[in-house]
Amino acid sequence: MKDIIYHPIGIIHTPFKEPFSAPMQLSKAKDVEGRIEIFKEFLDGLKDLEGFSHIIILFHMHKIKDFSLLVKPELDNEIRGVFSTRSPRRPNPIGFSIASLVGIKGSTIHIKGVDMIDGTPLIDIKPYIPESDSLSNTEIGWLKRK
Amino acid sequence: MKDIIYHPIGIIHTPFKEPFSAPMQLSKAKDVEGRIEIFKEFLDGLKDLEGFSHIIILFHMHKIKDFSLLVKPELDNEIRGVFSTRSPRRPNPIGFSIASLVGIKGSTIHIKGVDMIDGTPLIDIKPYIPESDSLSNTEIGWLKRK
Repeated sequence: MKDIIYHPIGIIHTPFKEPFSAPMQLSKAKDVEGRIEIFKEFLDGLKDLEGFSHIIILFHMHKIKDFSLLVKPELDNEIRGVFSTRSPRRPNPIGFSIASLVGIKGSTIHIKGVDMIDGTPLIDIKPYIPESDSLSNTEIGWLKRK
Repeated sequence: MKDIIYHPIGIIHTPFKEPFSAPMQLSKAKDVEGRIEIFKEFLDGLKDLEGFSHIIILFHMHKIKDFSLLVKPELDNEIRGVFSTRSPRRPNPIGFSIASLVGIKGSTIHIKGVDMIDGTPLIDIKPYIPESDSLSNTEIGWLKRK
């Protein structure tokens, strides 16, 4: 099948300078602040975003150079299939995070609750919509034993 | 900045044969069934996934050939910034859906609650983890007036 080619639309800045200093997904520091610098040519797309309290951020984990189909999650002693984890060592190293939207000034989006490393290329921003995104009555597989 | 290159890891099959016959994000038919065919070489990555009731699906909206920074959502009369909507006409046409996981047989993942078109390339699967993904006390900007 054909390759899928995306282009960064901005850069995410966080306090985390090294891959392994970022908080793990499940314990992510809700109060860690960061900012997104959107490239000027995409600025118009931010209209109306400020009314949302939370945004979905899709980003390219550019420091990840290889993947593994079986991984050992940090909080677990067993080997798990990578698609049952949030490990960055995935076939396509695409990251997904939900952040609080603090405010937008020009091309800078201030956010809270970041877990990616500084300099991460941004792929997309979507509004968090609880009607479709916030689920209850879920089962969490191997994680429920943690 | 450098292009980001991803490779499809499978194909998503749904009843929707045309781009505009798929249900809109906000009214997505929770009972529509579909299936994902994972390419054989990624099969080991599905280990342990079946214990989760819901999965996050990231996919490439391969029929989208251009984008617009300002769009008119189907349920709205005003022009909105594309990043404040779930419109597919985004700079990087990457789709995000949460589906119920019905079951896995070999390389076939049966899912429910699909809104993408038949033949959509799959980029990633992640487990839905309510601790980080299910938020309450959210604000939904322009959508709250609908």
